[in-house]
Amino acid sequence: MPGTRTSFEDHDCGVAQAVEAIGDQWCVLILRNLFMGMTRFDDFAAHLSISTKTLANRLQRMEAHGLLTATPDPHDKRGKIYQLTEKGTALGPVISALSLWGDKWEPKGDGSSRTEIYELATGKPIARVALVSQSGKILEGDDVSLRRGPMGSDVRDRLMDLVAQRDARKGAQ
Amino acid sequence: MPGTRTSFEDHDCGVAQAVEAIGDQWCVLILRNLFMGMTRFDDFAAHLSISTKTLANRLQRMEAHGLLTATPDPHDKRGKIYQLTEKGTALGPVISALSLWGDKWEPKGDGSSRTEIYELATGKPIARVALVSQSGKILEGDDVSLRRGPMGSDVRDRLMDLVAQRDARKGAQ
Repeated sequence: MPGTRTSFEDHDCGVAQAVEAIGDQWCVLILRNLFMGMTRFDDFAAHLSISTKTLANRLQRMEAHGLLTATPDPHDKRGKIYQLTEKGTALGPVISALSLWGDKWEPKGDGSSRTEIYELATGKPIARVALVSQSGKILEGDDVSLRRGPMGSDVRDRLMDLVAQRDARKGAQ
Repeated sequence: MPGTRTSFEDHDCGVAQAVEAIGDQWCVLILRNLFMGMTRFDDFAAHLSISTKTLANRLQRMEAHGLLTATPDPHDKRGKIYQLTEKGTALGPVISALSLWGDKWEPKGDGSSRTEIYELATGKPIARVALVSQSGKILEGDDVSLRRGPMGSDVRDRLMDLVAQRDARKGAQ
């Protein structure tokens, strides 16, 4: 039912599946904080200025999707410790790519209170997020393309024709 | 106003700024289709099973944020051609990272109708998305850390203390 559905599960596509599993924009910010080592409900609530109801709902959703674990807090009987699972940790490149893009294209203030990802060995900010080939080579946009499996739908057929046309234009340049 | 606000703009953080500029989950799927070369309103509507009202709203929002341009369609007086701007194109690593993560952690069916990113030179699917240092080196999770600017808030101070503790634990391993 267009306009009313809230699930993207039926799209056979990694991006759609990822979007469905990650959840909404709050979940992305919660993920970011988990990567920074935040573990406690009250810290998330304070840092995100999110209502406790919304926060509890999102944490529960993310636990159900296997992105994080919620375990009893040894220092607070009523509290829980939230931590990324392996599946959640594997979203590191997504969060890093968002962070770099935001810093470059939507800079805010002078950046003096901004959190930055840097290389431990050199102390320098990381340069970018890139695609890597199976042989470990860094690939640029022009080095890659898209292809579909044999069961692609009609609409996808049209879409892939467009990709093929784009690649042909690239080749002709 | 917690629970009612829908803007993440006031978070001084690249991730929050990115989340605000990109928009909701529909916008992510529209971005994916733009990367595949899709340009026409009717194609987006058919491929995403999205209502035309929601689609028009999201395209307008993305245009306002400078992610895409909408220009008159030379073949259809009433239609428009939607295309990624440089700013929108710079989200490539985000979409690629989502795609790879979804394919790995939320596989659906046998993948026979899935769209895949591959290396043109070898024909092989790309392996992963990785952080790259300023000297062009591929960095792993253990090679990087986070730091804050001098104006970090109290909550962020606590957060960065946690990061420092985590790094100390890493170093002690």
